Amino acid sequence: MAGNSFGQLLSVTTWGESHGGAVGVVIDGCPPRLALSPEMIQADLDRRKPGQSVITTQRAESDTVQILSGVFEGKTLGTPISLLVKNEDARSDDYLAFSQKYRPGHADFTYDKKYGIRNWQGGGRASARETIGRVAAAAVAKQVLWAATDMQILVYVKRVGPITATIDTTSLSLNQIDASIVRCPDPVAAKAMLALIAATKAQNDSIGGLVECVVRNVPVGLGEPVFDKLTADLAKACLSIPATRGIEFGSGFAGTYQLGSEQNDVFYMDNGAVRTRSNHSGGIQGGISNGQDIVLRVGFKAASTIGLEQETISTTGNNTTMAARGRHDPCVLPRAVPIVEAMVALVLADHWLRFKAQCL
Amino acid sequence: MAGNSFGQLLSVTTWGESHGGAVGVVIDGCPPRLALSPEMIQADLDRRKPGQSVITTQRAESDTVQILSGVFEGKTLGTPISLLVKNEDARSDDYLAFSQKYRPGHADFTYDKKYGIRNWQGGGRASARETIGRVAAAAVAKQVLWAATDMQILVYVKRVGPITATIDTTSLSLNQIDASIVRCPDPVAAKAMLALIAATKAQNDSIGGLVECVVRNVPVGLGEPVFDKLTADLAKACLSIPATRGIEFGSGFAGTYQLGSEQNDVFYMDNGAVRTRSNHSGGIQGGISNGQDIVLRVGFKAASTIGLEQETISTTGNNTTMAARGRHDPCVLPRAVPIVEAMVALVLADHWLRFKAQCL
Amino acid sequence: MAGNSFGQLLSVTTWGESHGGAVGVVIDGCPPRLALSPEMIQADLDRRKPGQSVITTQRAESDTVQILSGVFEGKTLGTPISLLVKNEDARSDDYLAFSQKYRPGHADFTYDKKYGIRNWQGGGRASARETIGRVAAAAVAKQVLWAATDMQILVYVKRVGPITATIDTTSLSLNQIDASIVRCPDPVAAKAMLALIAATKAQNDSIGGLVECVVRNVPVGLGEPVFDKLTADLAKACLSIPATRGIEFGSGFAGTYQLGSEQNDVFYMDNGAVRTRSNHSGGIQGGISNGQDIVLRVGFKAASTIGLEQETISTTGNNTTMAARGRHDPCVLPRAVPIVEAMVALVLADHWLRFKAQCL
Amino acid sequence: MAGNSFGQLLSVTTWGESHGGAVGVVIDGCPPRLALSPEMIQADLDRRKPGQSVITTQRAESDTVQILSGVFEGKTLGTPISLLVKNEDARSDDYLAFSQKYRPGHADFTYDKKYGIRNWQGGGRASARETIGRVAAAAVAKQVLWAATDMQILVYVKRVGPITATIDTTSLSLNQIDASIVRCPDPVAAKAMLALIAATKAQNDSIGGLVECVVRNVPVGLGEPVFDKLTADLAKACLSIPATRGIEFGSGFAGTYQLGSEQNDVFYMDNGAVRTRSNHSGGIQGGISNGQDIVLRVGFKAASTIGLEQETISTTGNNTTMAARGRHDPCVLPRAVPIVEAMVALVLADHWLRFKAQCL
Repeated sequence: MAGNSFGQLLSVTTWGESHGGAVGVVIDGCPPRLALSPEMIQADLDRRKPGQSVITTQRAESDTVQILSGVFEGKTLGTPISLLVKNEDARSDDYLAFSQKYRPGHADFTYDKKYGIRNWQGGGRASARETIGRVAAAAVAKQVLWAATDMQILVYVKRVGPITATIDTTSLSLNQIDASIVRCPDPVAAKAMLALIAATKAQNDSIGGLVECVVRNVPVGLGEPVFDKLTADLAKACLSIPATRGIEFGSGFAGTYQLGSEQNDVFYMDNGAVRTRSNHSGGIQGGISNGQDIVLRVGFKAASTIGLEQETISTTGNNTTMAARGRHDPCVLPRAVPIVEAMVALVLADHWLRFKAQCL
Repeated sequence: MAGNSFGQLLSVTTWGESHGGAVGVVIDGCPPRLALSPEMIQADLDRRKPGQSVITTQRAESDTVQILSGVFEGKTLGTPISLLVKNEDARSDDYLAFSQKYRPGHADFTYDKKYGIRNWQGGGRASARETIGRVAAAAVAKQVLWAATDMQILVYVKRVGPITATIDTTSLSLNQIDASIVRCPDPVAAKAMLALIAATKAQNDSIGGLVECVVRNVPVGLGEPVFDKLTADLAKACLSIPATRGIEFGSGFAGTYQLGSEQNDVFYMDNGAVRTRSNHSGGIQGGISNGQDIVLRVGFKAASTIGLEQETISTTGNNTTMAARGRHDPCVLPRAVPIVEAMVALVLADHWLRFKAQCL
Repeated sequence: MAGNSFGQLLSVTTWGESHGGAVGVVIDGCPPRLALSPEMIQADLDRRKPGQSVITTQRAESDTVQILSGVFEGKTLGTPISLLVKNEDARSDDYLAFSQKYRPGHADFTYDKKYGIRNWQGGGRASARETIGRVAAAAVAKQVLWAATDMQILVYVKRVGPITATIDTTSLSLNQIDASIVRCPDPVAAKAMLALIAATKAQNDSIGGLVECVVRNVPVGLGEPVFDKLTADLAKACLSIPATRGIEFGSGFAGTYQLGSEQNDVFYMDNGAVRTRSNHSGGIQGGISNGQDIVLRVGFKAASTIGLEQETISTTGNNTTMAARGRHDPCVLPRAVPIVEAMVALVLADHWLRFKAQCL
Repeated sequence: MAGNSFGQLLSVTTWGESHGGAVGVVIDGCPPRLALSPEMIQADLDRRKPGQSVITTQRAESDTVQILSGVFEGKTLGTPISLLVKNEDARSDDYLAFSQKYRPGHADFTYDKKYGIRNWQGGGRASARETIGRVAAAAVAKQVLWAATDMQILVYVKRVGPITATIDTTSLSLNQIDASIVRCPDPVAAKAMLALIAATKAQNDSIGGLVECVVRNVPVGLGEPVFDKLTADLAKACLSIPATRGIEFGSGFAGTYQLGSEQNDVFYMDNGAVRTRSNHSGGIQGGISNGQDIVLRVGFKAASTIGLEQETISTTGNNTTMAARGRHDPCVLPRAVPIVEAMVALVLADHWLRFKAQCL
């Protein structure tokens, strides 16, 4: 109800502020007898953690996960899995200067008005640090998916500012994505993106872009008609990530310029398998997966924290200015990649369990 | 769980297929003592119903609503409100020819694979007829909103194919929107849109576009951090509407090309009121309304039902072709306007109640 | 949220007041391809309806059910099933005299204070008429149970006032239960109960008692640890029935006088099957079914509506008196039997689906 | 869904096994700006912890709570409150002997069949150790209740075996309850209960009884009609506690022997206040609080773990015997008192928020 839980059959609840003792997540509804180790979860957290490269924030957090419950001798028990990551490098001093000001583009103002109290030592629940719980939970969700299906979720940076990658999704692999610290599998574009991010950082500014996700080997039938369409739940999941501005599926907004005869994905038989000649619908029809690749794109705005001086107001309602000093990401997209992957995995695992629950 | 309910404190459950006896909705959680009459609901249903103009489907349905419970002497009781609309002009014969074929772009194939049974007499729950329940429920939601706030939800067609309207949202009114049967408040663009739709219809084809929504007078503080951000819930709501391809907020995808210094909505004091110099975030920061106008856009693909012959497969897995004969909309956007409005109203009313519930 | 829905995977929402146009229910989450006809549902409603015998209220309602959605050619579609029963014999005049008084033992006072508005023409949602939706929904739930298990739910009147039946549950059948209009399968006790109810009615009074439920052939593993124990959910279900005062499982309150060595149900092997020497736990251990018969008992108070004059207050806060004139049941237990059966069926069907959903 | 969460507006999720690293709880939906300190929570945990007296288990656990999130400078933030208690005195060896046997009366058998895996080092989620999270969460719930109402929840041991206390609930205080280690406020009965428990322990056996709860100063209007009646939700809450066998409200099962004219709680005006001459309904009518004291009783069976030798079966399906060696409670009732109090507090706080949410 207060919005900190997600999922119906595989339900995750994240907790923790950026500057409290720890952050964590409770995963309820995970089937029993799946393999689960701290190492499996840590691998995903390491892709998300700060300080990975010159283009991400230099905060040093090891983000080491502890499994507190729900696992016995390396297997899930079917009981709630509680995961915890301690906060280590929280420098409240970076924020002290801003305790009396609302940072532009951040949630300081809306939190203060909504709750009448705010932990000014950081972004609180609006901080990207909250997403640690999501990424950790998704490591569990992927165990669910892989136990029963061979779905593969590939997420990468498609565009930074105006630099757009060209990607052949049919041959794409995780290795290609992680070959570059910008997590763009097009080497030429990746190099240009890195240069743009470095230049933006040098100007004390930040830059936005686009993350794309392709899911392969999707079973037919995931997604519920009407309100819980797969598109609807993926949209909610992805737009719950900080700094997002929009989502589109398949041919997306560009496709809405066209005619029905151009956009319809006509069916044909391909050696006994049902296929579509095109995939404008992004693998989802009437809210239900049709077996083709799921394709979606999420737009991220430039990070709000910049070193340039900006107008703002004080918490007492006076005009003032500020320039950020905290360590921050000039471009959130490389670290957004594992977060989008996490949210897609959580949605698919939940819908997989919902799908199965309806088959008597 | 099966996806036919929406909302947490104001909960709606729609039911009914396009070719069963009726469609309807149960609204639970409506506060007591609000005025509610069939006429209030009918006004909204009449904006959604088929056969309104030459550019919409010629199916003749009066879509007359009955209030079966929850209202006594013109006031809500605080008990579930059950609303019912009978199906009148269901011509199953239009669909008989396609009972053995999967219509391209429709959910026939995915439903059949998911459920192993399908009412071939129409689109079932994937039919836009299901949205009657949503529009009827939203008439109740608006009573909730208007009893406590002066929020105003304005939705209109922003673009059809390549024809984009120019709209001054500060002076916009519902009358301007409904002045044209295409529901575009820019008279010049509206005329061009009508011509394009007529031409598309003459070619037995269909066309997509963009619906925009502006919400004025939004209280600060609506929306929950983390998973139930106002952006996330609006995205889920809008992408649960049939034929949608994407959603964006504020400066949207275009804004993701820019720098942080360009995108941040800086605060300033305006005669004692907090305002932002720009509204790139579309009135929502950290998932919580900041008091500026909420602005969002939803992309609709061209309707899947077209009169042109298309490739497809039979339910028994053979290649074949088909051309639609049923009465259908060459452009869904004019009738999508009240549906987007309905979903936005349902989200805002629910979040209004959630916001209030947290103030001890 | 407003308490009109029940169940997680098989979710039912009832609606309707005793004196509005109709009452009904929407069942969401029913798996597809199960046989369902109005006749199947009607059979259960007929066991619940008023006017069945001299010991029940003489209100004449045919309680004819209509299936409005979710069924096609005699099979469930997997979409919401909407069921409706029209109110026929609502005599508001019976209630007019009490529109300005709070009936003792009824919910008139609490509804008025909670909602600030009340349909004085009847008991509103507190009327037993609301349970029509539950009984109709349970007819669907039973199709779910019977499609996958051979569970058998037997419910009967165990005691009326001080008259207690002796029942051999191992040989019990539905026919034995329905052999008497009091729904007690012990013929001697049934006769005494009937005489007691008739005598009570003649005195313009009412009488309470005990309903017992035995479920046979229960699979091992139904029920979730911690909050959603099978005991907990059955307790909630049964105590949501009007006029209930308590519930107990297995050896119940009597068993709490005893020692652990007397109460423990020790296990033994019986030709390869696990059995317990006793069934004090009523077939549920740690909240999970253990394969033995589920046994529970629900206490019903005497009906609140009696013809004797009683003290009360007016809606304006003055002391007054009243004597009921409406047609009413001198003993609710015979008609409570199908309602308890319905609630038990709804819980078991929901937990059956939840159990199945956890098996990858 | 997997049953580890409770509450709709104030939602708690407990996690942790008796023999994992820790147990804990996440509380979501707590309003902001309420005072909360570890000391407030610890006081309640200390009433529940083992090793308090000669009649409880001698396991030594300090059960020290840590607040990991949701509190800043002694006030709640409105964000999830994560509480953790480390397991200290877990002696797995006590259980090793039983890793291949199902303990009678325990959930070992049902867990093993349901999940196909079991942490044999203890009772897992079925252990009373799980209730630490409930008691800790209830300390938060009580802050919610006390911020807005002057409700007082008094819980005590009413009966042990055949020894029943006589209690004047009008003058009862928490001090009187805690004056005796058996938590019975009748000194004479308390002494007899202690002697009975000691004698039972000396025989290596255990004994059951009855816990009673009285809630004073209840606002009118808590509870939702139909499924979420206050009675129904309290019943679910209390019967989710391990070792419970039944619950009754007001006059309970004894009241079901009587006539309507005896059981109806007639209204009268008492100096401008509405009162009832009796309180057979236990303060709840039609599922909604009527302002009189809420009265309920919960039956607890004798603890399953006893030192006497009993029949049982091995996990491989052979007949065998066993006698418990672990440290255990000869009578769970004294330690059940704070757990019943916790569940009642959680229900009342949740329904208080739900009640408030419906008042526009």
